[in-house]
This record gives sequence, C-alpha cells and structure tokens, in this order.
Amino acid sequence: FAQQSDADLAERVRLLEERLGSASANDVTAQQRGGRIQFSSADGNFTARVGGRLLLDSAWYDEDVSAMGEGSKFRQARLEASGTLYRHWSYVFQYDFTGSAEDGIKDAYLRYNNLKVADLPVILSLGNQFLPFGYLGQQSPKYTMFMEQSTASLVLGAGERRLGLRADVLGDRWRWSTAVARAPLGSRATDSNLDDPVDIATQITYSPIQEKGHVLMVGASFRDQSSKGSDTHRLRARPQTHLSPFRPVDTAAFTSDGFNAAGAQLVYQNGPFELEAEYLQQKYDAIQGGPADGEKPEFTGGYVNAGFFLTGESRAYDPRFNVFGAPTPARPLSAGGAGAWQLAASYSTLDLTDESIDGGRIDMAAVALNWYPEQRLRFSLEYGTVLEVDGGPFDGDEPSFVQARAQVEW
Amino acid sequence: FAQQSDADLAERVRLLEERLGSASANDVTAQQRGGRIQFSSADGNFTARVGGRLLLDSAWYDEDVSAMGEGSKFRQARLEASGTLYRHWSYVFQYDFTGSAEDGIKDAYLRYNNLKVADLPVILSLGNQFLPFGYLGQQSPKYTMFMEQSTASLVLGAGERRLGLRADVLGDRWRWSTAVARAPLGSRATDSNLDDPVDIATQITYSPIQEKGHVLMVGASFRDQSSKGSDTHRLRARPQTHLSPFRPVDTAAFTSDGFNAAGAQLVYQNGPFELEAEYLQQKYDAIQGGPADGEKPEFTGGYVNAGFFLTGESRAYDPRFNVFGAPTPARPLSAGGAGAWQLAASYSTLDLTDESIDGGRIDMAAVALNWYPEQRLRFSLEYGTVLEVDGGPFDGDEPSFVQARAQVEW
Amino acid sequence: FAQQSDADLAERVRLLEERLGSASANDVTAQQRGGRIQFSSADGNFTARVGGRLLLDSAWYDEDVSAMGEGSKFRQARLEASGTLYRHWSYVFQYDFTGSAEDGIKDAYLRYNNLKVADLPVILSLGNQFLPFGYLGQQSPKYTMFMEQSTASLVLGAGERRLGLRADVLGDRWRWSTAVARAPLGSRATDSNLDDPVDIATQITYSPIQEKGHVLMVGASFRDQSSKGSDTHRLRARPQTHLSPFRPVDTAAFTSDGFNAAGAQLVYQNGPFELEAEYLQQKYDAIQGGPADGEKPEFTGGYVNAGFFLTGESRAYDPRFNVFGAPTPARPLSAGGAGAWQLAASYSTLDLTDESIDGGRIDMAAVALNWYPEQRLRFSLEYGTVLEVDGGPFDGDEPSFVQARAQVEW
Repeated sequence: FAQQSDADLAERVRLLEERLGSASANDVTAQQRGGRIQFSSADGNFTARVGGRLLLDSAWYDEDVSAMGEGSKFRQARLEASGTLYRHWSYVFQYDFTGSAEDGIKDAYLRYNNLKVADLPVILSLGNQFLPFGYLGQQSPKYTMFMEQSTASLVLGAGERRLGLRADVLGDRWRWSTAVARAPLGSRATDSNLDDPVDIATQITYSPIQEKGHVLMVGASFRDQSSKGSDTHRLRARPQTHLSPFRPVDTAAFTSDGFNAAGAQLVYQNGPFELEAEYLQQKYDAIQGGPADGEKPEFTGGYVNAGFFLTGESRAYDPRFNVFGAPTPARPLSAGGAGAWQLAASYSTLDLTDESIDGGRIDMAAVALNWYPEQRLRFSLEYGTVLEVDGGPFDGDEPSFVQARAQVEW
Repeated sequence: FAQQSDADLAERVRLLEERLGSASANDVTAQQRGGRIQFSSADGNFTARVGGRLLLDSAWYDEDVSAMGEGSKFRQARLEASGTLYRHWSYVFQYDFTGSAEDGIKDAYLRYNNLKVADLPVILSLGNQFLPFGYLGQQSPKYTMFMEQSTASLVLGAGERRLGLRADVLGDRWRWSTAVARAPLGSRATDSNLDDPVDIATQITYSPIQEKGHVLMVGASFRDQSSKGSDTHRLRARPQTHLSPFRPVDTAAFTSDGFNAAGAQLVYQNGPFELEAEYLQQKYDAIQGGPADGEKPEFTGGYVNAGFFLTGESRAYDPRFNVFGAPTPARPLSAGGAGAWQLAASYSTLDLTDESIDGGRIDMAAVALNWYPEQRLRFSLEYGTVLEVDGGPFDGDEPSFVQARAQVEW
Repeated sequence: FAQQSDADLAERVRLLEERLGSASANDVTAQQRGGRIQFSSADGNFTARVGGRLLLDSAWYDEDVSAMGEGSKFRQARLEASGTLYRHWSYVFQYDFTGSAEDGIKDAYLRYNNLKVADLPVILSLGNQFLPFGYLGQQSPKYTMFMEQSTASLVLGAGERRLGLRADVLGDRWRWSTAVARAPLGSRATDSNLDDPVDIATQITYSPIQEKGHVLMVGASFRDQSSKGSDTHRLRARPQTHLSPFRPVDTAAFTSDGFNAAGAQLVYQNGPFELEAEYLQQKYDAIQGGPADGEKPEFTGGYVNAGFFLTGESRAYDPRFNVFGAPTPARPLSAGGAGAWQLAASYSTLDLTDESIDGGRIDMAAVALNWYPEQRLRFSLEYGTVLEVDGGPFDGDEPSFVQARAQVEW
C-alpha cells in the first residue's frame, strides 16, 4: 500500500515539475512595489513598466491689482514607459498630455550604465533630460514640499529639459555631472532660426553625511549657453502657482548670444526634518539693440524650504543622483493609520532687474500641508503670498493664493 | 528502498516548494477576460490594465441643400490606463488621439470607494468625468445602439466631461449622484476670461426591476451652470453623423450668465429587447445684448431608441451606475457561430428655437444593424434621415446618410 | 514512520497542486524575446504588447547656397499597442508624439486572418496603413540601411499611411495585395474640400529564391488616385536628411484631379549582403489652371541601395509581406562581442521636371555605418551628398551632410 502511494505521489510530483518546467531566463514575472507594477525577466536583464500620473490643481486668488481668475486644471497628465534592456541599457519615455506634439515629451532618453573611468562608474544618458544644474529643478515634482518650484529655481535653475548627452561620474560621496545639449523640444531649428543654441552644464555634489534618514549635501553648478546667431530671451515667473497666467515679474524680450550661470545648493535631512536652499545667478552676454544695447545684465535669486513630517517619516534618498523619493507612511490609511503628514514653509526671492532691464524683484513666502495616505497618493494644500514686487511692469502688485492638489500615480 | 524513494520525493517536493516559494501578496498575475488582459496582485489590492480602442467610421451622404462630403475617419483612437490601488482607490486615464493637447483627455479621475454615509456606500470621484445628468451621455458609446447620440442628448444632455468632484450614493435599488465641476478641459481660464463657470448637477435613479436580463430604470436629473462673468454660449448639432461638419440646427453665439436644466430618463430591458427614452430641457439666464437681450429662452428635446438582439443576447447591466456593457454573443464567430446581431430604431427631436433665438427644430429617424462577432468587436451599419428642419439658418435642409463603423478594443 | 512521512509529503504535494491549480486558458503569461516583452494567454488565442521607440537624430550640414541649420531632434517618439484577439483578429495602434492630434496616428488597424479564397490565405486589414505600393516605404525605418528613404521612394512611393481596406492574398512564393483608401489622417474632409480622394493601389511580388539568408524578390505596383473635386498637389523632397527643412526640389502647388503611378521593385539578399532597387513613376491627370494648364506631367525616379554586414549577420525576412527585420548580432555586446556592423551605400535620382512643371532633378549618393550592439538597439552614422540639382527653384544648390541616429525600442 505504501508503495502504491509512493508511486502515486511520484507521478503527482512529476506532473508538478512538468508544469513548472517551462521556466527560463526569458520568462517575465510581475511584482507590485509601492503601488507600481513592474515586470522583470527571470535573469533580471530585462524590466519594463508602463505607468502614469494625474496631478489635479485648484486655486483661489486674493488678487491685488491684476486679475488672476480661479479654477481647476490638470497640472500634469502623463503616461510613461521605462525599463531595462540587456541589463546595462535602460530607457525612459514620458509624455504629458497637457502639452501638444513634441512639447509634451518629457524625460525621453537611452541610458548606458556599464562604463568605468578610473574605477568609477560613469552613466551616459542620451536624449531629452534635465541639465545637471541646480537642485529643485532636478527633483520629481511629485514629492517636493511645494506644488511649484521657487521662482528663483524656476527662472534661473535647470529650466526645461533639453536634447543632449549627459555623463554622471559617481564617487563614493560625490557626483560629477556634465551635459552638452541643444534646444528644448518644440523650439528647435526653424526656417527663421536654423541654428540651435549649445548649452553646457556641469555640477558637482558632495555629501559628507549620507546615512539612512540623515543627509547633508552641498553642490555647485555652472552653465554656459551660446548661439551662433542671436536668440531672443525673456525671463518671467508665475508666483509659485500655475493656474493663473499672471506673472508679476517679466524682463520682456531682449536679444543676446547667450549667458553663463552658476548656482550653489545645500540639502539637509535629519529624520522627518528637511531643509533645502539654493542661490542662483545668470549673467547675459552683451544685449543687442534696444535701450539696454551692449549691457550685460545679471539676474539673481534664491530660496530656503523647510519641511517636517508630523507623523515621523523620513523620505528615502538616492545618493547617486541626490534625489528624494516618495515618503512611505509609517501607518498608511489602508492599515488603519492616518498616512504621512508633512508641514512645510518657504521663502524665496528673485531679482530680474539689472542695468537697463527692469523685470522687477519678487519676494515670496508660502506654507504647505501635504498628506500621503499611501506611498504614492498625495493631497496638498498651500497658502502663498507675494511679500513684495519691487520694480518691473507690475511694481507693487502683490496677490496671495490658496491652492490644492490631488495626485495619483501608478 | 521505500525510504530512499521517500527521501528523493521529499527533495523534489522541497525544490518545487522553493520554486514557488516567492509567491507573496506582491506577486502580480494576469488574466484574459472578454478579450481584455487584466493584471492583479495576489491579494487583489492592486490591479492594472492598459487598453485602447479604435473606432473607424465611413459615411456617405444624400445631401439636400448644404454640401456634406463623404469619407472616413477615426471617430475615436484611444489608449487608456486604469487600475486599483490599495484596494479602495482606483484611477482611470483615457486619451483620445483624435484630439489635441488637453482636448484629448477623456475620463481622468481618482476614485475612493471606502466611505459610508448612513450605512450606504458613497463613491467619490475627483477629476475629468461626466456630470450625473441624463442617460445616453453617460453610457459608453462603444456599446450604444447607435453610433452617435441623439441630437437632444448631444446638445441638452451631460455634455462634455468636466473637471470636478462627483459623489455617488448607492442604495439598494437607487442611486443619487451629485457633482460640482468647472469648465471642460481646453476651455478653462485664459487671459480674456479668467473665471471658469461652476456647474452643479444631480441625478436620482430608481430601478423597480433589476434582475439579470430584466431591468426597469427611471431617473430624474437637474443641473445649474453659472459664471461670475458672462460666457458665450452656442447650441448646435450634427444630425447623428459625425463625419460631415454640417450642423442643420444652430443658435449662433449669445451671451448669458448660465442656465438651469432638467431631464427625465426611462430605460427598459427584457432579454434581447431594450428601450431607452429621455426628455431634456435647458433654460438660460437673461441673455445680454443682441436682438434677444433680456430674454430667457428654453430649449427642449427628447428621443426614443429601441433595440432587439436577433440572436437572443441580453446585455449585462451594472446596477450601481445604470450602465450597459458589451453583449456576450451566445455563439461567437470563434466558436463557429454567427456572433450577436442587434437591430435598432430611433426617433429624436430637438428644438433650438425659442423667443428671439432661432436655431431651428430638427426631427430625425434612424435604423441600425450592429454585429458583434465577439464580445468586444463591433461592426455597425446605419441609415439616418432628417425628417424635418423647421426654422433656423438651415430651414428645410433635410439630408439622409448611410454610415458604418468598425470597432476594436483591447 | 514511513507512513507519517508519506502523509506529510502527500499534503505538501496537495498544497503545491492547489497553488498551481488556477491555471486555465485565460491565464496570461509574459516572455521576453529580443528585448520585447510579449503577453500571451495559455491557449495562445490572445496576445498583447505595449511597446515604444525613440529615434534621436543629429545632423551637421555643409551648406551650398541655402541655409540648412544644424541641431538635434526626435525623428520618431512612439508608443504602440498591438495584439491578437480570439486567435484570428489582431490590432496595431502606433502613435508618434512628434506629430500633433491625428497627424501622429501611424499604423492603426484591425486585421482578420482566417479567410481563404481558392485555398489561399487572404489577410484583411482595415484602418490606417501603407498602400501596397513600392518597397522601401513599406519597410520599418528602424531596420533600413539608411536613416531616410531615397528621394524617389519618399515622393513617388507608397507615401503616407491612408485610411482604407487592404487585402493580401498569400501564395507560396508570391503575394498579391490591393487596397482602397481615402485621405491621409489630418487631411480629410473640411468645409472647403468635403470630398476625400479615392486611392487604389495594387502590388504583386514574386520570390523565386526564398531561403533563410538567401532571397530574391521582384515586384510590380500600380496606383490610381482620383478626386471628385480638384485637389492641390505639391511634390518636393528633403535630400535624405530630415533635420533641415530645406528641400532642393519642389514642384510648387498645382491643381489636378489625381494621378496614376507604377513601380518596379527588386530585392536580393545573400547572407550578409543585401541589394534593393526600385524604379517609380507618377503621371498626373490634366492640370487645371496656371502655366501648365491642360498638361499631364510625369515624374520619375529610382534608387539602388546595397548593404553588407561586416560581422556576417543576415537579417530575418518575412516572406509573407516581404519585410526584413532587425539583425540578430552574432556576438552581441552583452555577450562580450562587438555587436553587428553594417556598411551601406546608396545612389538615387528623382526628376520633378516635366512639361511646364519645373521642380528640378536631384541625384544623390550616401554611405552609412550601422551598429547594432544588441538586436533592437541601433546607432547609425551617415554621409550624404547631393551630386546634382538640375533645374527647379534651387538649381545647382548641392549641399552635403553628416547625420547620426541613436535608436532604442522596447
């Protein structure tokens, strides 16, 4: 009887083995991690993800002089595909449907991570991507303390993504990044201006403290943009709210061959507390024509942001690229908790007036309350106020606002 | 010997267990259901789907007075992502590539389904979605009897999706839905009109009969749209065919602060037989300027659609949202059958003439033959005729048409 | 003791069987093949893939007379979904985000492959697709020898995809394809021109040699395009580089009811060596108005391309549709090899001058070096030169260029 049972068991085991027998390096399985579904081949050489995000904003304005309106809109509505190919290659392709045609192409690059120079890993990225310049402009806006960048970072920071080649050399506690890029998508060669500018940026960061939940990072960035021909430039900024088209500071258009820029970055995290600060400046080549003909104006700005997780979380930090991720709530809503709650405060200044260019100076303050019921679900409520607009076309026009965001990604 | 065999078997079982050992709540598997592939985590808390659809239309016109053309086009060409997050949250994001920029964003919302009020489930949906108003405009056009909405539903029904918050309270045999919304995407705050309108709609439905294949539903809807400023309004309709741009009724533009609207809905299904009917009216606030200055015109319309599955199918019905799904052919083509065949007939009327506004009245009739060789593959052939155009800029212009559609989704 | 062990083992086997027990025809699994991840139901009746591609071009010009600029851009940036439904139906939907609205819709069709006529398989495809005309225009540009089509193929070949119905009859060594189509997307019926043209094309191919790595194919194509009204036509061509908008040959706009066209194709592959050549001509119906009134000009062109894989690969060939795929490197980079290296040379001519239409004749030569480190990763470097521009608005304007491409797909 035991023998017969054994034979029966053996046959059942054989059938099980057969059913599992097709497993190979080419089999692809899927896992859920923090709300995202990721596909991966058995040998890990190939991965893929198709995700997306919706950021829905509403804003209400306490206008001063200029009308600002109120309403709702999608701040971002994206699909994205990303993955690994042959272990060492990877790609990202993001499209934002609030843009049109190639304006909507965001991160879109091919990356190769199997190079070493002097025993240091070097990562090459070719395509549409941010320049290695400044700090806030290189963070994912999905997890920043505030819904919008500080005015200084917005106007004098990395700016829009550009088509180019970027190399990141990764040290133990430092990163050195350099990129050579052409024009942002949608503003490339046309019949009237066939030569794209050349934009070179470099950044070095150093992290004397780089532990889990305890980070100190300092960085310096430099950038040079130059055209064969003369390009039209215009610097202006919304007051850290995107719904209203009103921009209190605005240099109006001027013509120049380009500019050089520099910035200093400081980031500190200690558990639930975070601090980030930048100083940025941008100096133009000689202006051609107009009342500022021959002048080389320099624009400057900076900000300090501080945040604190009331519920004690500290955000994960990627030391390779100095990027913070989504907080993981200690007690998420789905586990009967309250989610993660973050309080944040900000001060910023941006001066677009120099020599004969009078764009105005704007000083702002803002506070924010961010709620992450789950790792990648966010609701934000902000109050922002323009402390002062000094000079420029909207001298003294100092509105305030309340704005809110609902954010989902997958 | 039996001992050795046992040890061998035990080892083989251990190996099998090890290979299956990685199974966890985070493992994601995929299933095919009715032609769609759905991903789901082992605990069911996370699901995801990336789908799409192509609706290809051709039309031929028997013109009367105005030229109408002929040809083919994609009526819809969409990708969509949808899924569940942390069991109680879900998202939908549809984009239609026949639109441009944010005009192409269709359903795009975040939903939360874990609320109860007085022991009744309440579903909250935040984002771009239809107002709870009318019946036909809230159905998926993929499975409606006719390729296009009746003129009355098109002009006086739910209209375009709008950004807003919607709450659905679900009773046993009833649903009460309310939404507060702003402008449709692509028509929000601009420099010239910074204030979006506020649009409030509410609907109550009651289903005295709600069995499999046997449904009776009655509903009533109310809506109020108002602007701080004055908005331009224009009501006009294509004659239930979308390829030709000709619109036989058209109020031309007029200015008003808004309108209120009401509608009554009736739906009956008995096996393969379906009947749906609506009456809709929309009354404007005082018109500002022009020959109709100070008037409050009221526009009305309605339709009756009846369908019958010659092959005996009855469509699945979702009693929560009063929505019909795709028919499941009793004998699909892939099983050697003929698929599902549906015959439908329609009568509609829409009157856009009142007081000094003379948009005209249009009466229409149409018949349709729909073939579903498989559950989510559809081919349609329709004949439509304008019975009468009375008044308006195209008084007496009464064309007919034949149109066809091929539809695939995945 | 053995009994107890047996009972224990039996229970463990039962648990394993239970965990595997859910396997059914509806279970969907995923596999990686050549860098792509494909989903498939257990019975193979349903498959799905969501992929994409990025083609990033840079170009530098040695201008002659006209300015050409320089810079970088995405030549293609696409997402695509494709799959099988109910075994015999399939769909493809590609969208290129460098286009806007429906201009960006590329392949988008529903296909049925379960028909036979006289024992021969007939494949029906309904939607947006290439006409069966010419050779190069029906190949995937991802794997062609050169980054751009020859001028003759570009202007006189299949042209843009069009909405229509195509039937492919597949013989043992031959294919006969016919399509009836309307206008390309984005140029369909408008208020001013409501009638789309009707475009009919037919092609027959014969392959006396059709072995693995050894192919000889000859083909002939015919096409007729006609409008009810009169359409505006304009033939012009970039010189096999897409970044600069400069087009050395250009007929300017003329009005005609349509044209008929013909072409002959020859393709030969012998291991790593490939040769492809075409001759194409297009003859217009009587021109209406202007200096060429009443004339019926005929434009002609052709090209010869030859390629050789220095590393010995021969590309896979799909004899059903006469299409070549990506080369599979004999020694890919990921296996420590050098990837596949292909050298190619090209000569082309296109004559857009006939009777009173003087668009000019352009002769070109080009050489290319293509590197495929892995099966679906490509880097290309090309040198192209305009040998002669004879007549037309840019008579004698003969630039040269170097261009490069990085290409990733998934």
